[in-house]
Amino acid sequence: MPANPTTGMNSGDPEGPTDPQRACFEAGIKFGALYHQFAGTPVSPASADSLARAIETAIENQPHCEAVQVDIDTDTLAAAIADGPATYAELTGRFMEVRVQVERAGVRVVAEMAMEEGYPLMSLARVEG
Amino acid sequence: MPANPTTGMNSGDPEGPTDPQRACFEAGIKFGALYHQFAGTPVSPASADSLARAIETAIENQPHCEAVQVDIDTDTLAAAIADGPATYAELTGRFMEVRVQVERAGVRVVAEMAMEEGYPLMSLARVEG
Amino acid sequence: MPANPTTGMNSGDPEGPTDPQRACFEAGIKFGALYHQFAGTPVSPASADSLARAIETAIENQPHCEAVQVDIDTDTLAAAIADGPATYAELTGRFMEVRVQVERAGVRVVAEMAMEEGYPLMSLARVEG
Amino acid sequence: MPANPTTGMNSGDPEGPTDPQRACFEAGIKFGALYHQFAGTPVSPASADSLARAIETAIENQPHCEAVQVDIDTDTLAAAIADGPATYAELTGRFMEVRVQVERAGVRVVAEMAMEEGYPLMSLARVEG
Repeated sequence: MPANPTTGMNSGDPEGPTDPQRACFEAGIKFGALYHQFAGTPVSPASADSLARAIETAIENQPHCEAVQVDIDTDTLAAAIADGPATYAELTGRFMEVRVQVERAGVRVVAEMAMEEGYPLMSLARVEG
Repeated sequence: MPANPTTGMNSGDPEGPTDPQRACFEAGIKFGALYHQFAGTPVSPASADSLARAIETAIENQPHCEAVQVDIDTDTLAAAIADGPATYAELTGRFMEVRVQVERAGVRVVAEMAMEEGYPLMSLARVEG
Repeated sequence: MPANPTTGMNSGDPEGPTDPQRACFEAGIKFGALYHQFAGTPVSPASADSLARAIETAIENQPHCEAVQVDIDTDTLAAAIADGPATYAELTGRFMEVRVQVERAGVRVVAEMAMEEGYPLMSLARVEG
Repeated sequence: MPANPTTGMNSGDPEGPTDPQRACFEAGIKFGALYHQFAGTPVSPASADSLARAIETAIENQPHCEAVQVDIDTDTLAAAIADGPATYAELTGRFMEVRVQVERAGVRVVAEMAMEEGYPLMSLARVEG
């Protein structure tokens, strides 16, 4: 079976992955990078905005990354801190929603991270082009 | 087989991303996670094997991740340490090659990271199913 | 003299920090490095031992670090996973106890991390020499 | 003043570490945390300021941490990027200088990180009180 039964519309190798598949792979890289670079960062409601903006501009440096939007839910964060032993928390998926837009070889991918049944689920929202 | 990559159909949403695209997204997540979780770890030739095995077993915990292979190039590492000021180095892409295999909804994706012109390039090798 | 009222027994600068203070600073570096390098790593009971050994050998690479002992509590980990949505957890302080021994300029410092009232408290256990 | 560093007495345990030693340990934790949380972050001259501010406010959340100052050297960063294969670099010690001020039990510690012979050396600058 050929490696790529879908369309063959990849940028160089007729047997290889397609451009949309490559763009989805790139989107995944951004999410894994974002999460595992910044998980564990000390965060409080007062420092959340600065951290969210820094995460966005940091990940936007990566190849093919057009836009990153990070929302840290300061209400959830404040509630977790109020229940806990410290005046801050460690950043983790339950405190943030993320939206990443990647463009590669004319394909635009939008992917998202949001809590679903207690798990910070990363998923593809749209693949265009 | 329910997931048919030749049509662009996916398992749930007829308008949404395909199963192969979702599997490629998952493969990307594993690479971004692996790199940004472990980049910066102090590493020497003597500790490289322990670290490589721990990276493999850690990332294999992630959803849809069938296998991870990490090779830390101890010759390159030893040479970098010999040129530098310390008895160890910080783990970065120039010291490792990585191969990840993901399976999701009947689609198998193999992706790799290797140095290409001085950059640790992550790329899709195969998308099957 | 304000800067260093204790003894002045430091290695070079009579006005500066003492050798025991410098050794305690080094011990703190090891703890902060260990925690923030590895927090967020995907971990399960099956992969815990590999990760613990890799953390030990990684941090032992750092200057003045004589020994690191990491115990990941697989019972606590298994219980957290059973309560959660995934088959693994992200490494955090509630799952591990750590003991670090540093030696610098003839001073030995032992420091520990353990849960105390829900917080992963890092503390000096002994300063000798 | 209850904490008397000239005698080796500490606030609770007459046999244990002194308050200045504990404050130095705290300062070390902040440095290790800062470095290993953020090393590897994608950074460019355009995103450096946002990242530096986020690092400061994140680490200032930690216990006993009064102030953090991070300077990312955008000239060094721009030069490294110009020599390299990408439009950004991974954050590492060669690109930043850091100053941390900790206060614990009446003891103030100032510590710094700067490049020294190619190594990002973390050191105590002052221990007061």
